[in-house]
Amino acid sequence: MLSKNQIKLITSLQQKKYRKQHQLFFAEGVKVIQELLNSNFELEHLFSTTEHFHNVPKNKFSLISEAELKKISVLTTPNVCLALFKIPAELPVAEKGLVVALDDIRDPGNLGTIVRLCDWFGVKQVVCSMETADIYNPKVVQATMGSITRVNVVYASLEKFLSETKLPVFGTYMDGDSIYKTKLPGEGILVMGNEANGISPAIEKLTGNRLSIPRFGDLQQTESLNVATATAIILSEFKRLG
Amino acid sequence: MLSKNQIKLITSLQQKKYRKQHQLFFAEGVKVIQELLNSNFELEHLFSTTEHFHNVPKNKFSLISEAELKKISVLTTPNVCLALFKIPAELPVAEKGLVVALDDIRDPGNLGTIVRLCDWFGVKQVVCSMETADIYNPKVVQATMGSITRVNVVYASLEKFLSETKLPVFGTYMDGDSIYKTKLPGEGILVMGNEANGISPAIEKLTGNRLSIPRFGDLQQTESLNVATATAIILSEFKRLG
Repeated sequence: MLSKNQIKLITSLQQKKYRKQHQLFFAEGVKVIQELLNSNFELEHLFSTTEHFHNVPKNKFSLISEAELKKISVLTTPNVCLALFKIPAELPVAEKGLVVALDDIRDPGNLGTIVRLCDWFGVKQVVCSMETADIYNPKVVQATMGSITRVNVVYASLEKFLSETKLPVFGTYMDGDSIYKTKLPGEGILVMGNEANGISPAIEKLTGNRLSIPRFGDLQQTESLNVATATAIILSEFKRLG
Repeated sequence: MLSKNQIKLITSLQQKKYRKQHQLFFAEGVKVIQELLNSNFELEHLFSTTEHFHNVPKNKFSLISEAELKKISVLTTPNVCLALFKIPAELPVAEKGLVVALDDIRDPGNLGTIVRLCDWFGVKQVVCSMETADIYNPKVVQATMGSITRVNVVYASLEKFLSETKLPVFGTYMDGDSIYKTKLPGEGILVMGNEANGISPAIEKLTGNRLSIPRFGDLQQTESLNVATATAIILSEFKRLG
């Protein structure tokens, strides 16, 4: 059973201000929810159309109908279950190894895909500008596929962070040095810029190392790569010999 | 001005069967439309809220209001113009250099992103299984960002194509050889598999070379990469020393 108030609460969590107010977010689907349950994230309540989950206390579990799930899901094809979790306190930034810094990534799918990529390549720390999409946006949570349980994502002033760090800072530009010909270190900060505008001028000043992904198309007309695919290529290049 | 019949026609083109019936598709936004106008694609009609376009014949141009554009657009934020183009005849497959073969890529965004990546890396030929998303789906057209004008995308039986080709065939699997340690040739066919199921068993038999993208995460729990980001990493590795 699902009460009107529960529906109202869950629907409201699609918006950041209500996530902040209630300190809650939600995830959908067995895989993602299972990963969150197996992590340090604290379950608030699980709504499911099957009894699939065994280790969830009874007072935190509600069996619901598919029609009810449809009312609270943001997926085009609702997927068995939806769970509310508490938003944890932000952990301090771990400045070691490779760190990814995001300068105003606005698309939730891009942010989620980048966090999933970081997890794959062993990047433990992502620092987002305050204007970057919210990691607890349901679309971001889905796109991370559970990787938020293993990558520490924090929000901060990138300008402050980059001006204080002792790690080398790398940015990607159209006119940078080829990533294939540059010696890339095991430690550093990789800055990825906004979908439409790239890295902002204030942040550009703080990226001491300018990188570029060479184009191979004959006509050289492809303007740019999507920021998530660009991140994939650069992280692979940083890690390939690591 | 936009007639009721025009609205009905354009809206119908969101569906493949009507695209096939009318042999038309549509694209949106100045950048993508400009690239199509500069290519071999044949314009059927351009609808725009500004007089921006100079080289379009008067009988193929309609100035419309923003409210009218909203009625025919599939974008959340409609972007100045929408144009109908004729679906061109399929060109023969060019079996040279690196060819990308897609085994049932269902997500339009993934297909579009992969075609854009192919363009970036100079891959001229994409062969899609019959079940792969339609390249003229409006979401695919948008995600290619104009790259469909430079990459030849055809639909065929992958089983037939791969069993007849003389090029070496590469597939990506969880247990393949590391892409970082394998000598990758300048010519070959790279097969990318379905989002949920990977490469199908019938196609797997035809991929003589099994590749893998190594994971670097400590816990090794990230299950997989999104197919578009995986394609980005592999194409980069094929081309980096090319």
